[in-house]
Amino acid sequence: MSSAFSAKAVFRKRKKIQFSIHYQIDGKCFSAVAKPSLPKGTRDFLPVEVNRRKYIFDIVERVFRKYGFLPIETPAMESLETLLGKYGDEGDKLLFKVLNNGDYLKDADEKAYENKDSFGLVKSISKRGLRYDLTVPFARFVVMNQNEIQLPFKRYQIQPVWRADKPQKGRYQEFFQCDVDVVGSESLLYEAELVCIYHEIFKTLGIHVHILINNRKILFGLAEAAGLADKFMEMTVAIDKLDKIGRDGVMREMAQRDITAEQAETVLHLLEVKSIDELAGHPAFQTSETGMKGVAEVRAVFDFLAESDIHDLIFDVSLARGLSYYTGCIFEVKVDTQYHPSISMGSIGGGGRYDNLTGAFGLPGVSGVGVSLGAERIYDVLSELSLFPATIDESVPVIFLCFDAEGLTQAFRYAMAIRTAGIACEVYPEAKPMKKQMKYANDRAIPYVAILGANELQQGTISLKDMITGNQTTVKIEDLITALS
Amino acid sequence: MSSAFSAKAVFRKRKKIQFSIHYQIDGKCFSAVAKPSLPKGTRDFLPVEVNRRKYIFDIVERVFRKYGFLPIETPAMESLETLLGKYGDEGDKLLFKVLNNGDYLKDADEKAYENKDSFGLVKSISKRGLRYDLTVPFARFVVMNQNEIQLPFKRYQIQPVWRADKPQKGRYQEFFQCDVDVVGSESLLYEAELVCIYHEIFKTLGIHVHILINNRKILFGLAEAAGLADKFMEMTVAIDKLDKIGRDGVMREMAQRDITAEQAETVLHLLEVKSIDELAGHPAFQTSETGMKGVAEVRAVFDFLAESDIHDLIFDVSLARGLSYYTGCIFEVKVDTQYHPSISMGSIGGGGRYDNLTGAFGLPGVSGVGVSLGAERIYDVLSELSLFPATIDESVPVIFLCFDAEGLTQAFRYAMAIRTAGIACEVYPEAKPMKKQMKYANDRAIPYVAILGANELQQGTISLKDMITGNQTTVKIEDLITALS
Repeated sequence: MSSAFSAKAVFRKRKKIQFSIHYQIDGKCFSAVAKPSLPKGTRDFLPVEVNRRKYIFDIVERVFRKYGFLPIETPAMESLETLLGKYGDEGDKLLFKVLNNGDYLKDADEKAYENKDSFGLVKSISKRGLRYDLTVPFARFVVMNQNEIQLPFKRYQIQPVWRADKPQKGRYQEFFQCDVDVVGSESLLYEAELVCIYHEIFKTLGIHVHILINNRKILFGLAEAAGLADKFMEMTVAIDKLDKIGRDGVMREMAQRDITAEQAETVLHLLEVKSIDELAGHPAFQTSETGMKGVAEVRAVFDFLAESDIHDLIFDVSLARGLSYYTGCIFEVKVDTQYHPSISMGSIGGGGRYDNLTGAFGLPGVSGVGVSLGAERIYDVLSELSLFPATIDESVPVIFLCFDAEGLTQAFRYAMAIRTAGIACEVYPEAKPMKKQMKYANDRAIPYVAILGANELQQGTISLKDMITGNQTTVKIEDLITALS
Repeated sequence: MSSAFSAKAVFRKRKKIQFSIHYQIDGKCFSAVAKPSLPKGTRDFLPVEVNRRKYIFDIVERVFRKYGFLPIETPAMESLETLLGKYGDEGDKLLFKVLNNGDYLKDADEKAYENKDSFGLVKSISKRGLRYDLTVPFARFVVMNQNEIQLPFKRYQIQPVWRADKPQKGRYQEFFQCDVDVVGSESLLYEAELVCIYHEIFKTLGIHVHILINNRKILFGLAEAAGLADKFMEMTVAIDKLDKIGRDGVMREMAQRDITAEQAETVLHLLEVKSIDELAGHPAFQTSETGMKGVAEVRAVFDFLAESDIHDLIFDVSLARGLSYYTGCIFEVKVDTQYHPSISMGSIGGGGRYDNLTGAFGLPGVSGVGVSLGAERIYDVLSELSLFPATIDESVPVIFLCFDAEGLTQAFRYAMAIRTAGIACEVYPEAKPMKKQMKYANDRAIPYVAILGANELQQGTISLKDMITGNQTTVKIEDLITALS
């Protein structure tokens, strides 16, 4: 302990720490680890990043609440039973599994070990996995808490998820999802509300977007019109790639899935319609009852918004979205690249209606609709477009600097008075050389410094320096509080 | 897919779901899982709980920011290398380890497996662990980001941590920690600021507390006075239990650690001093230079606060705190049971100064001081004392109810106008029986319902019902917006 007392708080700046040292506390020896690191695909967030992320989440949350959505939270660890089989074979592999605690080998599946069957062994040594998305936990939540919630249940959830994807630029193993859903009603009013929510969030953030809408029943109608009802998912998966692989690519993709060229042509021809009315008037499409129901649903959403100022909702018959659980309207949000030509980002949001989310947990037939926001991508778009307000990066409006212990005591008292008035401030904690104190204020981007020298202390005043203009004035603490209020 | 289309949104309330069913989507068979569950020691949070937790965190965060502390966030998963060996052998066992992805058995330590050495095998099949506290990740953060931050670095961090403790009432395997620290300065101004922060947070929450202060150097002084300098940690550990096991218990505890009865008596006698002045005047204690330095440090903290309205800071010479890394002032917050006799909670916060937090990561000698808040316990205290403001549980101030599609369309438009004015509201999504709609409004604790019947639609008015008094009035949308603003 005594060695710790004599340690000096010397902080050496180094580019990289590459040596290893040994030291003692309380008589115990520690071997210092050189170069601490983070697991690949994970990140630290510096204050400026946390504040910017918070800015996005605060806006998102405020809008969700304005529409009566309520927050829920679920634990990071779910039973593997809850998670496995919900995201396909690939998803099962990308789930992070948590090793059982204690003597986990006691129950290990010896056969699986002998066969070096890593995946087979998992079940016997791991009971828990990390949350992979917010949808499956939400479904489990609804079933488990069905006696605690009222239907329709409008919830939002903003929490991190974990996926063992190969890390690359912009893709992390831990990232936030932002979901808003309502379950227990088939009303299309909610589709309209979700469009309003998207509209208001992106308008507030300053990003011009297109909110694309289509309907799975319309896609089913396309399939029926082309005699492909039995190959609906294969067709949908191919259409989903239209953006990336083009018309010819989709033709090839469909051919591989035993869709005839004639059928593919019919679908691709229908995908060229420019409006919901044009589609509804097409003789081939009209033969599909389900398809026409989809048209009616999309029209109902537009009708709700008819007298609004929302003009960024666009019908896009080629919008497919891969997830198989959608059954009604589907949505996708894209940055309007005419307004923002520098952005080459794909979708920054999406979602749709599903009819059986909670079925896997024993509660079939609960209809719901929800959308999510790609928070990480939105962050990148706002950075690229310099749309974060400058005020986010400001920490406190003023810091006190002083020359001696007496000044420090007075600075602390002034600071208490300012904080009592509800205003943030800081006190530089030691009478270090003024240059050093000024550098700190500057590095922290604090706009005003309040200096307490011998004169100021004697006269009960403060020398206030504007760090941007360099102007210096003499004020009383009351004036400073008034000015900052 | 077509089977999903025909599914009805029937939601059956059941106490428990105990059967297992099979159903089809898109031709795929799913076997429904009966009774979904959560891993032991984890919890879902319902909206009212999230909102109440948010209420606490918002106040805490606002106060932290007022003192110039900045938020950081670290990933849930850290390298096991970072975590192992930092929390003692018991901590190493309670760390949640994440299984390596892919074919993890490829690199498994065969010898450890053959010996059924669960702990020995970990290193070869797991590289990552879940965050166990916020202190070690913060130390790693400071070292890794030393070129990005300014010293002194004032940070706060509010994130969940995971521990494989045996779950019991009030103890969970996933829970939030709330830490505020400053590193890179030895100034006692920060000790005083942390006391102000504690004071302001608990005052705002409405909890009367005692903020106890002591100093590790004072405890070292006690040890020196009793000729126990070489048994400082043993003495501290025993003193730490005084509250629980009493004077006699501490005597016994010390005897077990080879401390003589005479030495123990000297310590226990000094522990009876009632004030810092009494201690400083004690001849035996005065012989310890380190002890007197501790006295000076505690006095400096009181001096900073001399002219403040903070009277809940109390010097407690018997405050020890178990963690070995503290080297200066230490703090603990306890509920004032004279004000709140129903509360029998231990500490709801604590912390202190340390001189070598980042040493384990290759950066020795960085002094820091920090405290944390027991958010889960504070939640329980506020619940017990009914101190959560009622407004937290309100979702929206008004909901629209209607009798037909025309009413629904109008309700949607009115709702848009209200939301444009920045006010939250809801629309019941279907023209269900009025009783059912009213029940929803009631269950959601919405104070006003706005009813749109045929008369109202014809006259462009709204029937507004106060759900508490039952009073009903007829208003125009403009009046409603004004009233809600």
